[in-house]
Amino acid sequence: MQMKQRFAAEMFGTCWLVLGGCGSAVLAAKFPGTGIGFAGVALAFGLTVLTMAYTVGHISGGHFNPAVSVGLTVAGRLSVRDLLPYIIAQVMGGILGAFLLSVIANGAPGFDAGASGFATNGYGAHSPGHYSLLACIVCEVAMTFFFVLVILGVTDGRAISGFAPLAIGLCLTLIHLISIPVTNTSVNPARSTGPALVVGGAALSQLWLFWVAPIAGACIAGFVYPRLFPESIVMVAPGPLAIDAP
Amino acid sequence: MQMKQRFAAEMFGTCWLVLGGCGSAVLAAKFPGTGIGFAGVALAFGLTVLTMAYTVGHISGGHFNPAVSVGLTVAGRLSVRDLLPYIIAQVMGGILGAFLLSVIANGAPGFDAGASGFATNGYGAHSPGHYSLLACIVCEVAMTFFFVLVILGVTDGRAISGFAPLAIGLCLTLIHLISIPVTNTSVNPARSTGPALVVGGAALSQLWLFWVAPIAGACIAGFVYPRLFPESIVMVAPGPLAIDAP
Amino acid sequence: MQMKQRFAAEMFGTCWLVLGGCGSAVLAAKFPGTGIGFAGVALAFGLTVLTMAYTVGHISGGHFNPAVSVGLTVAGRLSVRDLLPYIIAQVMGGILGAFLLSVIANGAPGFDAGASGFATNGYGAHSPGHYSLLACIVCEVAMTFFFVLVILGVTDGRAISGFAPLAIGLCLTLIHLISIPVTNTSVNPARSTGPALVVGGAALSQLWLFWVAPIAGACIAGFVYPRLFPESIVMVAPGPLAIDAP
Amino acid sequence: MQMKQRFAAEMFGTCWLVLGGCGSAVLAAKFPGTGIGFAGVALAFGLTVLTMAYTVGHISGGHFNPAVSVGLTVAGRLSVRDLLPYIIAQVMGGILGAFLLSVIANGAPGFDAGASGFATNGYGAHSPGHYSLLACIVCEVAMTFFFVLVILGVTDGRAISGFAPLAIGLCLTLIHLISIPVTNTSVNPARSTGPALVVGGAALSQLWLFWVAPIAGACIAGFVYPRLFPESIVMVAPGPLAIDAP
Repeated sequence: MQMKQRFAAEMFGTCWLVLGGCGSAVLAAKFPGTGIGFAGVALAFGLTVLTMAYTVGHISGGHFNPAVSVGLTVAGRLSVRDLLPYIIAQVMGGILGAFLLSVIANGAPGFDAGASGFATNGYGAHSPGHYSLLACIVCEVAMTFFFVLVILGVTDGRAISGFAPLAIGLCLTLIHLISIPVTNTSVNPARSTGPALVVGGAALSQLWLFWVAPIAGACIAGFVYPRLFPESIVMVAPGPLAIDAP
Repeated sequence: MQMKQRFAAEMFGTCWLVLGGCGSAVLAAKFPGTGIGFAGVALAFGLTVLTMAYTVGHISGGHFNPAVSVGLTVAGRLSVRDLLPYIIAQVMGGILGAFLLSVIANGAPGFDAGASGFATNGYGAHSPGHYSLLACIVCEVAMTFFFVLVILGVTDGRAISGFAPLAIGLCLTLIHLISIPVTNTSVNPARSTGPALVVGGAALSQLWLFWVAPIAGACIAGFVYPRLFPESIVMVAPGPLAIDAP
Repeated sequence: MQMKQRFAAEMFGTCWLVLGGCGSAVLAAKFPGTGIGFAGVALAFGLTVLTMAYTVGHISGGHFNPAVSVGLTVAGRLSVRDLLPYIIAQVMGGILGAFLLSVIANGAPGFDAGASGFATNGYGAHSPGHYSLLACIVCEVAMTFFFVLVILGVTDGRAISGFAPLAIGLCLTLIHLISIPVTNTSVNPARSTGPALVVGGAALSQLWLFWVAPIAGACIAGFVYPRLFPESIVMVAPGPLAIDAP
Repeated sequence: MQMKQRFAAEMFGTCWLVLGGCGSAVLAAKFPGTGIGFAGVALAFGLTVLTMAYTVGHISGGHFNPAVSVGLTVAGRLSVRDLLPYIIAQVMGGILGAFLLSVIANGAPGFDAGASGFATNGYGAHSPGHYSLLACIVCEVAMTFFFVLVILGVTDGRAISGFAPLAIGLCLTLIHLISIPVTNTSVNPARSTGPALVVGGAALSQLWLFWVAPIAGACIAGFVYPRLFPESIVMVAPGPLAIDAP
């Protein structure tokens, strides 16, 4: 598969993740009386990945997340030379999604991206439940660790084929059901970067955490998985989530 | 497959989409204390498509949506001569579903279709969150673009087979989780037309937008997808979502 | 497959449908502050069928519903001589589930099955939203018609195999998302009979409707489907939902 | 498959079940205005099992629950010599998940594990709805009976392959939709043990019930299933949920 196609797939996928996931949070979570709440936002984030992984998973592998790409590289499932283009495509997609969302959100009377939070991630005073920096680090590391563990397991050659995008998408839903009150849930540096660039301020000054912690969790999973379950066979043919054949 | 069968499939499917999706909104969304809210309505719309696409997808392809049929025509997946019968079947189904729903809804004491909104779509003063015309156009174009992109991707010959109706249905759920506050979510001219004909007034005078914007978004997706991912193989055998063999 | 096994499968399945579906409504729907509401009840009903259809669908076909069995008989998918044992097993299972639920529910301080409604179905003054008899009839007939249409379509030999229990279960979820406010949703005479026998009173005197209307809707679907889509192949091998080989 | 790999799979899986399921309850269920409620917690518990069963089901069978392992042993699907290591791995994982969760939860201002309940299970005064001991026993036995019945059925050689983790995970969601108000839902001794050790007090003194009742229900299912449906073929190859080949 050519990198041009894979780049487009990762960019559109991450754009949809931010437009859809953050969009549901900004536009619909707190609608008076019938708002979707954190559960609806959790479902939305998961479905962005589920839908796009079935749509372009056979083209790019369907990462849509720099932490996932790093974790898969550590696990030997993505070649090192592909990592940077993937991350660039993901960050570009995340920014595109956030700006597209800001155009829609600004159409509401009296909307103020800064005051609304615009689905940015944060710790301490900027955590939805005012969780401490330590709790937020532990949470993001643990959530991303399990996310990448699930990704590595369900795309293992021994796993049931076909269900990987379903399991990965619903795992992201699960992660949001747990951790929105803690950090507003990142586990994805590209998802954090887009809204932070729109809003600026604390969202931008706290952005480092949502690059460091998810990537740390992903690296641990990428290191641990092949050692715990060493018989894993790396797929090189375009399977459920296609991977790069070096 | 004969057009008579395909026509019936599209008509019943779109009838179910409007009866079920709009029905959940009109009958159950705001029930005091235990109403299903926007999240329940989002799930209902998606499940109408998921269930009917598994039921008759092998017969008609399971569009249930004029914008989808136009987008698939632009992408070369539906023959031009089939487009008009598909759209007629879909609009007839949407009207049938809306009138069937009005019979049920009118059985509640004091029900007034006009006052309730009857799940019609609207912008400006008739948008649930009073979003501007511009925001509503951008939203409907973007949502339908991604919807048709997902449809084209998950029915691509390279995609995992069998999961297309699941991914497409849940994509419609996702779109509703995001955009009910903006336009009450159309992305489907037939779904907008049925309730507008029951209610009349502003719903009818604003109906143009919910034909123009979804079809525009679908056309962009139908144009972009085969150019971005050119190795796509058009399926001619009755696969996950059957398509017309010219 | 022996009738003894099929009888047990239908009885356990319908017991689970009533214990789980009605149980979620009686025990959890209105729990203060964190209750699951109609959306949670809708999900529960659907998941009882989804889980049991994957569990025993290959044994009995996974009907768990006299209306479904009648509809499949009309469509030529169940032999007439099997219909009565199926209905007896389903009604016995529904009664067992309702009595098991009453043992649990009575463990709460001050619980009164009659005052709570105990998830019984009703029309007019006993409809959750006080819907008229006519609206309730139209609703139950229409909902069961589409339910059986979906069942016939997704188990058609031409449909994608494997997904039938998923689509059928989620179709029942969808039906509840629409129609709980109207009749508390039956579409299943066995599900209505169990709780009505526990509560008595109006639930019992209105029970006739929840036998007549669902069976009417199912008969229409069983008559229409093979005429609309005549190429349908009746499966005789134990497929997604096994059927009787005469 | 080596026991070392299977042990790790059961430990990580049960850790995720407690961190994710109990985590959603402790951190997100009652968040003011947008909390996920019991329905969100139910979804979270089910998704922990769905995701991990697709991730490591082919390695250990994906039990994550001592009651399930006992039930499968009674049904002849797990060898007796594997039972103890499985239970040890599951309890260790449950404890690890609970302590990890306590680190995150303690990061919120004013958090008190004891006062919050910390998602522990209980009866009588410690039941969410103050259900009696008898009701709680009946509920846990019945729920675990049906849970293990579903597990045995969907992993039967005659069942549709591939969907077992989906059906089992969603069955756990269903069980929570029904029974959180009764016992806070256990059906899993390892899930009960972790939080009880963190909180102590009544949670610990009532812990016996959440070992006895789930295991009793699982044993009944493990005894009944092979007798009701005797043609079942025990799979020995690593199928949807791998089992031990003696």
